[in-house]
Amino acid sequence: MYSPSSRPSLASDAPIGIFDSGIGGLTVAHAIAQAMPAERMLYFGDTAHMPYGDRSPELVRTYSVRIAEFLAAEGCKAIVMACNSASATAKAAVEACVDHDIPVIDVVAPVVQQLGREGAQRVGVIGTRATIGSGIYGKSLREVQHDRGIPDGHVEEWPTPLLAPLIEEGWQSHELMLPVIQGYLEAAGWCAGDERRIDALVLGCTHYPLAEEAFSRVLGPQVRLIDGPAIVAKAVAHALTVRGRLASADGPSVQHQFMVSDLTENFVQSAQRFFGKEVHLVPGGPWFQH
Amino acid sequence: MYSPSSRPSLASDAPIGIFDSGIGGLTVAHAIAQAMPAERMLYFGDTAHMPYGDRSPELVRTYSVRIAEFLAAEGCKAIVMACNSASATAKAAVEACVDHDIPVIDVVAPVVQQLGREGAQRVGVIGTRATIGSGIYGKSLREVQHDRGIPDGHVEEWPTPLLAPLIEEGWQSHELMLPVIQGYLEAAGWCAGDERRIDALVLGCTHYPLAEEAFSRVLGPQVRLIDGPAIVAKAVAHALTVRGRLASADGPSVQHQFMVSDLTENFVQSAQRFFGKEVHLVPGGPWFQH
Repeated sequence: MYSPSSRPSLASDAPIGIFDSGIGGLTVAHAIAQAMPAERMLYFGDTAHMPYGDRSPELVRTYSVRIAEFLAAEGCKAIVMACNSASATAKAAVEACVDHDIPVIDVVAPVVQQLGREGAQRVGVIGTRATIGSGIYGKSLREVQHDRGIPDGHVEEWPTPLLAPLIEEGWQSHELMLPVIQGYLEAAGWCAGDERRIDALVLGCTHYPLAEEAFSRVLGPQVRLIDGPAIVAKAVAHALTVRGRLASADGPSVQHQFMVSDLTENFVQSAQRFFGKEVHLVPGGPWFQH
Repeated sequence: MYSPSSRPSLASDAPIGIFDSGIGGLTVAHAIAQAMPAERMLYFGDTAHMPYGDRSPELVRTYSVRIAEFLAAEGCKAIVMACNSASATAKAAVEACVDHDIPVIDVVAPVVQQLGREGAQRVGVIGTRATIGSGIYGKSLREVQHDRGIPDGHVEEWPTPLLAPLIEEGWQSHELMLPVIQGYLEAAGWCAGDERRIDALVLGCTHYPLAEEAFSRVLGPQVRLIDGPAIVAKAVAHALTVRGRLASADGPSVQHQFMVSDLTENFVQSAQRFFGKEVHLVPGGPWFQH
């Protein structure tokens, strides 16, 4: 458990802690780096236990709490749950395990709030089994639509469990990616001509933004794709701003730290794809032994 | 560590311990049940840590040793490593951690021996990154070919990391399975017309036998598919026979035990597909807490 007596000061130059079940959360880290280039990040990818999307809610909570405690003990000034499966099942558990002075930003709530502000009506959500099985997007989107009196508000969720492994393999632009996405979206009934046609699609997994082009091609320009990482980065900036904890832009040059619980050559290669530039992964984190 | 003083007697009615990173090893359990219907099995699927195929060798060894110690402590009379990734990286570590009286049967060595007996010349091997990265099939097949003086012996290995997730989703007969398999095997240069054409293909992952038909269609009848699970079942029968530890056929009716380290509805459904009939999965094993 996080001990206040040993707590490092949560100064503006403390790092932002970010975690994911693996390397997909680097799309969120990338968006944060773009939006706030002065911020230092401590990223932890739980590559020893990925993918969370196939795990039970109990196990995802167990892992998430342990990681959040680790990031808090490392002195992080905010914790970003850059994993939809963790956000969907472990947000409350993570908030309960760290000091309330440390804001916990998940990747679901900011997207839902944004959709509410935009008055989105017919929304589709895709994600892993854990995320979709939790029903978190549907439940919270329907609440927001109701609260804002959005007419004809409608939300549907659909699990697309193969997309993350395909993107992780770098197949986001592969010729077979289109028929796989098409198969899923047609089965959901969201394509052109369908009665249940949607007007916005939430890419409810950190991997999916890499395949944005393929989604656009299948759905056509009438369907907006919701850019989760950028929205989450804004939410992080807001949480730091209200606490007066934004890093100073004229500080020393920023050195991020990228830790994984299991390091393989393949993760090193994939990490670059997700972060958009070279990433120096080191083994570390709460389970680190070998 | 396994303690001889508390050791249950390794009688013929003790169970055969079988483990895999998940449920794929149930294809091996199925073959054992077919070959030796009187044998009782204690199956452990490490669904909390799957897939081993993407993990580092060190981590696969850590997990495998802990599971083998658990199965030995449960009184298993033999331990079957029904996972290619574990067999490729952790065989020696598992043998070292259990009493030498307990035979450890992996899924690589029996297949390699069988290929040597058959005089196989041009052999292709596909598997996960961990399995292929270990080079175990290539190394041991080349040794066997050399020892047996097989002329023009030739072995090539190729990683096919997306096949296990696709089969786990039940896509083994999906229309997109063929182009994915074709893409991999063409990239390897093993298809008809290729200079590196093979005459036998080792399906080096417990999931792959479920997609046997798709492999046959892509490779044509000239390429033999090596039926790993059946060969492994024979090796298990042999190991028990030489130790006089085969179960009596007129014993009580057999009740298998199927444990997993993380239980989800999806695993329950997939398990039936891999075992060929209903499987009652229960949460349990060395990491069981919740």
